[in-house]
Amino acid sequence: MKAVGMVVEYNPFHNGHLYHLQQTKKETNAECLIAVMSSHFVQRGEPALVSKWARTKMALAGGVDLVVELPYPFAVQTADMFAHGAISILDALHCQEICFGSEHGNIDHFLEAVHLLKQYEQEHNQRLKQLLESGMSYAKAYATALGQLQNEQSTLDLSKPNNILGFHYVKAIVEQQSNMTPKTIQRIVAHYHDSHLPNEETIASATSIRHHLQTDGLQSISSYVSPTTKEELQLYYTVYGTFHYWEHYFPLLKYRLLTINLEELHQIAEVEEGLEHRLKKAIQQAKSFREFLTCVKTKRYTWTRLQRVCTHILTNTTKKEMNFIRAYKKATYIRLLGMNENGQRYLRKMKKKLKLPLITKVATLQNDPIYKLEQKAAQAYVSILPEPLLTEALQMEYATPPLRKLT
Amino acid sequence: MKAVGMVVEYNPFHNGHLYHLQQTKKETNAECLIAVMSSHFVQRGEPALVSKWARTKMALAGGVDLVVELPYPFAVQTADMFAHGAISILDALHCQEICFGSEHGNIDHFLEAVHLLKQYEQEHNQRLKQLLESGMSYAKAYATALGQLQNEQSTLDLSKPNNILGFHYVKAIVEQQSNMTPKTIQRIVAHYHDSHLPNEETIASATSIRHHLQTDGLQSISSYVSPTTKEELQLYYTVYGTFHYWEHYFPLLKYRLLTINLEELHQIAEVEEGLEHRLKKAIQQAKSFREFLTCVKTKRYTWTRLQRVCTHILTNTTKKEMNFIRAYKKATYIRLLGMNENGQRYLRKMKKKLKLPLITKVATLQNDPIYKLEQKAAQAYVSILPEPLLTEALQMEYATPPLRKLT
Repeated sequence: MKAVGMVVEYNPFHNGHLYHLQQTKKETNAECLIAVMSSHFVQRGEPALVSKWARTKMALAGGVDLVVELPYPFAVQTADMFAHGAISILDALHCQEICFGSEHGNIDHFLEAVHLLKQYEQEHNQRLKQLLESGMSYAKAYATALGQLQNEQSTLDLSKPNNILGFHYVKAIVEQQSNMTPKTIQRIVAHYHDSHLPNEETIASATSIRHHLQTDGLQSISSYVSPTTKEELQLYYTVYGTFHYWEHYFPLLKYRLLTINLEELHQIAEVEEGLEHRLKKAIQQAKSFREFLTCVKTKRYTWTRLQRVCTHILTNTTKKEMNFIRAYKKATYIRLLGMNENGQRYLRKMKKKLKLPLITKVATLQNDPIYKLEQKAAQAYVSILPEPLLTEALQMEYATPPLRKLT
Repeated sequence: MKAVGMVVEYNPFHNGHLYHLQQTKKETNAECLIAVMSSHFVQRGEPALVSKWARTKMALAGGVDLVVELPYPFAVQTADMFAHGAISILDALHCQEICFGSEHGNIDHFLEAVHLLKQYEQEHNQRLKQLLESGMSYAKAYATALGQLQNEQSTLDLSKPNNILGFHYVKAIVEQQSNMTPKTIQRIVAHYHDSHLPNEETIASATSIRHHLQTDGLQSISSYVSPTTKEELQLYYTVYGTFHYWEHYFPLLKYRLLTINLEELHQIAEVEEGLEHRLKKAIQQAKSFREFLTCVKTKRYTWTRLQRVCTHILTNTTKKEMNFIRAYKKATYIRLLGMNENGQRYLRKMKKKLKLPLITKVATLQNDPIYKLEQKAAQAYVSILPEPLLTEALQMEYATPPLRKLT
């Protein structure tokens, strides 16, 4: 059985994701589609709109055969670490290929860029350092330094978010010496950061879908998501009375920032270069998350980077706790979130060959340094819910078995 | 000018307090009545019903001439440390006497008990240790051990809350070699822990007043508080939409306990003997503060002790931060909350003789180890308010000058 991997967030699952999934199946002849999905917080440092369980159901309904979790310490990370975590999990599941959407669309140029980087790593690092010292953000400095290595014909534009991620998937495959073959599909129509819905189309970016969901309600996104996604969003809202946006967490973040000591704040992951002083100062005046971030923002710190910092403060994730991941760069387990019968068949076949333990009950993970962070994140995620929903949602982290979809 | 000190919480100021204040004035011929008052959290480990500013206004209206703050690290403490903080402040203000209400009512027996303790300290400590090892709570063990030192005629019943506090005031005076003379007035009618209001009377305990305020509203406590207290409570509620009860802080406490690491929790003040494990376990299931404490409670840990533990978790007060206070046992400054013209006259006269700096603007205290904890507590206290009230209330900690009452 040929398995093909995808790295996803499905926040929420929409028609663009469906297109990518169907193209992947067609172009790779995959017999089992595996998605490794960010858990409760996503790479941009935001809470996912709805829980990982609801998003797993959307994925299964969309045709994914197997959904596994990208744990918090890999999910809420720079593209580099995000990719390393995801690739290590797909590799452990013996995917033969991985297929990602990109603005660029030509896999050869991704491979070339990675090999160029490997060849001129020292030179690249020197340039990167200089650009960072000039006050540029890390993402921009990295893209610029890499651009200077490439020749004009094959230049990958690393200012494009899906190109960056793709580049890091390929790089992680090379660095982990994985046998997986990378493929890419050119993304259509919507760009990642678009916040306007195209009227006549059926594909919109997840960002614009979240934006319109918040502003105009569920009806406004009907054309861009599958009926199942709409149903799952509706169900989640009915049960929990809310979707999850940063602003809902702002009271908790503010409370935490008000009572944390400077030295403790400095211990939090990604709080570097005296940022703790800016954060402590700005929180005194800020009445909303947007106001807070606007006040902290500088050229050096991108919005996304600051959102990740805030997420680590919210989840109390320390540098020390991240050290393991930074050094090891690989997952320690595969947590199964959901599967259909085809996915189940694949697992039955591969069970004994998997490179990491397959986890269906997290109770066995209590001492795992990666799961410890996932657990805290899961607990922070539900902390905005009213009781008794909060306590019930809390139990789900331990009590929910992998979701099953009958085909 | 003869100054007499009182140690108060005024949570809220009621007719019993008024009686104590008038008796004190009468029996001591005080020319200036000084109250050192717990700030935003009180000795039992609870948030005060309303802010220190509102309670200062009640005190001034009731006839106190000068209100100064008992900072958080002394206020939310065992009777011993609570007393040491309060006595050090009243002593620094050159009070000639202090006068406290007690169930016992005879100051000689307080003095005797303290001198007995000093004489047989080693014996007392041994008994205390034995009783603690048998699983008794600290408060009960202390009272029992001390009871065994006393002769029958003069036995002070240290199971009574105001006797305990009084005993520790006298002990602190002796230990700090203060020149203040202690006096006591027998408390009338209401006992500290009463939760039923006496129908025909005008004096009820603060506990019962808070209870009835919460259950039956402001009207139900009219007979037991002065018009000004009622007015201030009404005003506070109108502005902030709430009084402050532990249950309101439970979502913040739960969030904090869910995301704190065991090792961090162990660093929090008063979290001893593996209590961190009980707390982390119980929070998973508890849907309210009451449910939580009921689940954590043992014979060893009194409700009050556990409430203090929870307050320290809420305010992120660590053992390390408390070390200074435990060793030094005295205040480092006098923070003026309010005064009438008489109080102002007293201060003008004594200004140059005060034993500690008199603070009217807290900006000068930023590096003070005691104020640092008061500041965190003040910030945690307002964290349950909605924006923009939260940010406005936050500014009050820095921007509010001492309140003045014209006579």
